[in-house]
Amino acid sequence: MTEQAPTSAARTRFVCGLIGGGIGRSLSPGMHEAEADRRGLHYTYRTVDITELGLSAEQGVGLIRPAGHLGFTGLNITHPCKRLAVAHVDELSPEAARIGAINTVVFTDGRAVGHNTDVTGFALGFRRDMPGADLGHVVQVGAGGAGAAVAHALVGLGVEDLTIVDVDEDRAVALASEVAVATGGAVVGAAPESLPDRLGRADGIVNCTPVGMAHHPGLPFDPDLLRAEHWLVDVIYRPLVTELVRAARERGCRTATGAGMAIGQAAESFHLFTGVRPDPADFAQHFDRLIALEGADRAHP
Amino acid sequence: MTEQAPTSAARTRFVCGLIGGGIGRSLSPGMHEAEADRRGLHYTYRTVDITELGLSAEQGVGLIRPAGHLGFTGLNITHPCKRLAVAHVDELSPEAARIGAINTVVFTDGRAVGHNTDVTGFALGFRRDMPGADLGHVVQVGAGGAGAAVAHALVGLGVEDLTIVDVDEDRAVALASEVAVATGGAVVGAAPESLPDRLGRADGIVNCTPVGMAHHPGLPFDPDLLRAEHWLVDVIYRPLVTELVRAARERGCRTATGAGMAIGQAAESFHLFTGVRPDPADFAQHFDRLIALEGADRAHP
Repeated sequence: MTEQAPTSAARTRFVCGLIGGGIGRSLSPGMHEAEADRRGLHYTYRTVDITELGLSAEQGVGLIRPAGHLGFTGLNITHPCKRLAVAHVDELSPEAARIGAINTVVFTDGRAVGHNTDVTGFALGFRRDMPGADLGHVVQVGAGGAGAAVAHALVGLGVEDLTIVDVDEDRAVALASEVAVATGGAVVGAAPESLPDRLGRADGIVNCTPVGMAHHPGLPFDPDLLRAEHWLVDVIYRPLVTELVRAARERGCRTATGAGMAIGQAAESFHLFTGVRPDPADFAQHFDRLIALEGADRAHP
Repeated sequence: MTEQAPTSAARTRFVCGLIGGGIGRSLSPGMHEAEADRRGLHYTYRTVDITELGLSAEQGVGLIRPAGHLGFTGLNITHPCKRLAVAHVDELSPEAARIGAINTVVFTDGRAVGHNTDVTGFALGFRRDMPGADLGHVVQVGAGGAGAAVAHALVGLGVEDLTIVDVDEDRAVALASEVAVATGGAVVGAAPESLPDRLGRADGIVNCTPVGMAHHPGLPFDPDLLRAEHWLVDVIYRPLVTELVRAARERGCRTATGAGMAIGQAAESFHLFTGVRPDPADFAQHFDRLIALEGADRAHP
């Protein structure tokens, strides 16, 4: 996309939002509005929590067209609406088309264009948090919505050999073949039983399952399969340090939390909405400040 | 409604809008945003022009619920959506219920509440522009959407004897009996043929027909029926000085333009949206400035 002149952005009143389920505590409004305020942009970011509104995922994506009519600048889309949203836009970015899921919609000249900044967002975060990491063989656990974006990003980052593991082996194989066809990379799907073997040969591991989230505690696989030589990225950021990240650190692994992807996708969406390219380091600061505020809220309820 | 604490308003990001047809040049966004800026409120006001979007009036009012879900603070509603909108809110103010039409929706705690600030807006404007005007017998020409609000406002202002004339006599009689029942005032409907007689006995006249608007030029009745003793209010504000207002001025009548109602309804809506009560004089300044800018635009296209 073309860079919008800062003077034009300064005159605009931006209205954006996030559609998804259970997003009442999302950090997106805080990150977006903090960055806009810092830059003197007039910007509003709403959360549209379909769980709280009592709407189905279908009804949630049914709000995309009305948002365009009502003058929204753009929308972020999250679970469980990312795939369904594809049918509610006029156009897809090449990346979004490859993945078949969108997390960002930009309204331009009466048209809704779908993007996927999870891919670029994960890549941004990975480059920031894991510079120089060995990309020979990577095992990704989880082939759901986040997994699709991460798999594309990993191949894009230069991973030579990617194994996708999921409790639903068919889903792992389907995603692997999708990514292999779209990118030309070497990607295979596998069942969890193959993990001891696969991790034995892996340089790095990415968790894309929800296991480890605040309301879904636990470990996505046996942590005794981890070795100090592995690097590990968890895409979960609530809690910021999951049981898996803690287990990996205890074993001496290099680790990165879900902050990288959360920050990266937000910065990329902000760029799409405003035409102003932010420094991801600024978004990282907003993220850290918001997480710290949450901690303070928990300490003083 | 309760007055919102200014501190709470100062922390809020307001998103409002106007749904209607052919509203591309509406002064509402300019008035609302100018007042908010002056007060340091974070406020965005969008125009949702169903004509430009290719939507029917039914589709236009179909955007009211989505706007609530998407986090809008409130909406203004204008022609041709005011009556249809009633079916798309959860609750009506007593005034809106009496009139059966709304021009303002406020979203509060997941509920949409319909108001009609055209009534209070006309009354505000009338008190400002026509202080001391004789309210014995008034003739209102036009029984459409604007006419309904004005008739209620006139009785509320103390008009003793109100005649409503419309080219569609049935519509005039229906509105007259509606207003008489709702207010207990003396209101009758009549055909245009009765105008010479009615105006002969009238103190004041209000034009609520669209005749005289920029795209609907002309005079709503024979100006030779006007006498210097008449006061005359036109609710049209584009152009600000209609052929009728000019004809009345030439005959020595005291006149007021549609600015009063436009300013009054905007100030009342702003109060409903923000909880902050503006001084209508400030809205009048915004209005005058915007109209002057339009003149300058026309002079230097």
